[in-house]
Amino acid sequence: MTHRTAPDSINLAEKLARFSEHWSPRVVAEMNDYQFKLVKLRGEFVWHEHKDTDEVFFVIKGQMQVGFRDRDVTIGEGELFVVPRGVEHITRASDECHALIIEPRGVVNTGEAGGDLTAQNDRWI
Amino acid sequence: MTHRTAPDSINLAEKLARFSEHWSPRVVAEMNDYQFKLVKLRGEFVWHEHKDTDEVFFVIKGQMQVGFRDRDVTIGEGELFVVPRGVEHITRASDECHALIIEPRGVVNTGEAGGDLTAQNDRWI
Repeated sequence: MTHRTAPDSINLAEKLARFSEHWSPRVVAEMNDYQFKLVKLRGEFVWHEHKDTDEVFFVIKGQMQVGFRDRDVTIGEGELFVVPRGVEHITRASDECHALIIEPRGVVNTGEAGGDLTAQNDRWI
Repeated sequence: MTHRTAPDSINLAEKLARFSEHWSPRVVAEMNDYQFKLVKLRGEFVWHEHKDTDEVFFVIKGQMQVGFRDRDVTIGEGELFVVPRGVEHITRASDECHALIIEPRGVVNTGEAGGDLTAQNDRWI
């Protein structure tokens, strides 16, 4: 995927209405070599880490948790959270939650953990 | 400023309530060498460009315009827009608008245009 910037404004609610799968991020925009991805979360993800990068979650609807080995952080609607690079974490949402993920292009959702929840990367909507 | 990630979730509305100046971005988070900045816009900014980087606006409240030499783009609440690197633009908001800016650390709000609206950089809230 070559670098591209959308010529128009991107309506997140409109994009969110176009898919329903959980744990399957969809790219909506690129800024330099970073991507903005929408994701719907429900249930529990897998423990993983991203060795080389921080990762940002911004909650659009509902609430989610980022679990670390020593504590849990709750992210509510309109809140932003930075998962530090190299720190093992797990995401959870008891009810469906919609979030915007911001991270470098090429980051795999399960990090190096792999498994069934590993999503196709660089999937645009 | 060394790299730092906030240990807790960041409530954007709460941060926005803490300042009132227009055209004066406040950093709320860092992800790698990128910053998330809140800004309140009203009126018209100055024509400028960022030679080396794209710049993202996400509108939290109200609406804003990004003007280019050949067209205007309106960004409404819940919408995201990528200003491509190296393209001259101007931001405007007829009524007060609150937005989140995402761009590399060190980017100056007026690019190379300078002038009275050049804000102090790396100002956290």
